[in-house]
Amino acid sequence: MKKGVFITLEGPDGSGKTTQAARLARWLEERGRKVLITREPGGTKLAEILRKLALDPDLPVSKPTESLLHLAARADHVDKVIRPALEEGCVVICDRFGDSTLIYQGILGGMDLDQLRRLNLFATQGLQPDLTLLIDGDPRVLAMRRDARGVTDKFEQEGLAFQEKIRKGYLYLAEQEKERILLIHGEAPEAEVTEEIIKKVEKFV
Amino acid sequence: MKKGVFITLEGPDGSGKTTQAARLARWLEERGRKVLITREPGGTKLAEILRKLALDPDLPVSKPTESLLHLAARADHVDKVIRPALEEGCVVICDRFGDSTLIYQGILGGMDLDQLRRLNLFATQGLQPDLTLLIDGDPRVLAMRRDARGVTDKFEQEGLAFQEKIRKGYLYLAEQEKERILLIHGEAPEAEVTEEIIKKVEKFV
Repeated sequence: MKKGVFITLEGPDGSGKTTQAARLARWLEERGRKVLITREPGGTKLAEILRKLALDPDLPVSKPTESLLHLAARADHVDKVIRPALEEGCVVICDRFGDSTLIYQGILGGMDLDQLRRLNLFATQGLQPDLTLLIDGDPRVLAMRRDARGVTDKFEQEGLAFQEKIRKGYLYLAEQEKERILLIHGEAPEAEVTEEIIKKVEKFV
Repeated sequence: MKKGVFITLEGPDGSGKTTQAARLARWLEERGRKVLITREPGGTKLAEILRKLALDPDLPVSKPTESLLHLAARADHVDKVIRPALEEGCVVICDRFGDSTLIYQGILGGMDLDQLRRLNLFATQGLQPDLTLLIDGDPRVLAMRRDARGVTDKFEQEGLAFQEKIRKGYLYLAEQEKERILLIHGEAPEAEVTEEIIKKVEKFV
């Protein structure tokens, strides 16, 4: 039986998800909550292997294969890490989750969104985030942060048009699930972003 | 555009699928058909890696994860091997395919059959066998062959009750798709089994 709270963070690379996850965790821990921070793709030994396989340039895969690799990784992550922590009453903060599949394999990769939603539910055996914080902002503003940090990721190497597509995709998903996906204004200074996140999380924990 | 014929062989281990695949291939080649024999789980480099991961005792996985690993492997196998061969006009003979998922993860593993059917269609992007030859027989008779050959596989190590369940499961699937899944009497001598298979395949190739 799930007793904890499941929060996911979504948004393009460089939007500050990792930083905000850590800041939110600190705030929750100061209030006595047990917190688990985790991230996708990855999160278990098997999921790490699958993440590497999905990105391996020597093993190029089709979009359906790529989707299923990520979904197998998610199934293992939920089974071994997320669900047990929720059953212990933890607040689980996961950096990227099912919505990332809808964006990267769906909206960008051309796979059908409803089909991917059903696959997500199969992989998680029905587990969905209680709350998803979508860190949104103008890609040019977010890109400046990214450049300061150095370009490190496959998705970060793509251009502005690509980032605009990601933003639009996320806003489209948020529009469809207004209850679950809450917009966070990611262009603001770090501390202000945290404040906005805490205001939104407070009601849930 | 698919121009070839896609034939799958199903049945418990020890039912003679591998032998009959080879015999059928020889008969087809003698009649001038280009034939590709392949098998699951496996069939591509990635699929082999995934097969090993699904069976790795150091990485025990849940049934949904196991299902998704096999489905990712199938997606890659179809994409890189089966579909290209069909497009070239080959007769593709595949030793185990989607029905094995329905048996091992569905009927034996407890996952919902209709959900697995939809997942199969996603993995294969709609490709289904033109014809499935189900090699059926009394598990005790088949077990005698298996013992003669030596016990080599995870599934082969299970007992008779397990084999009865597999047989029943396959017969149930065949009952639901009489057009596609044709029963072959696997207890007969090898050459007779081949004869029955050829009679049934003849109309399709």
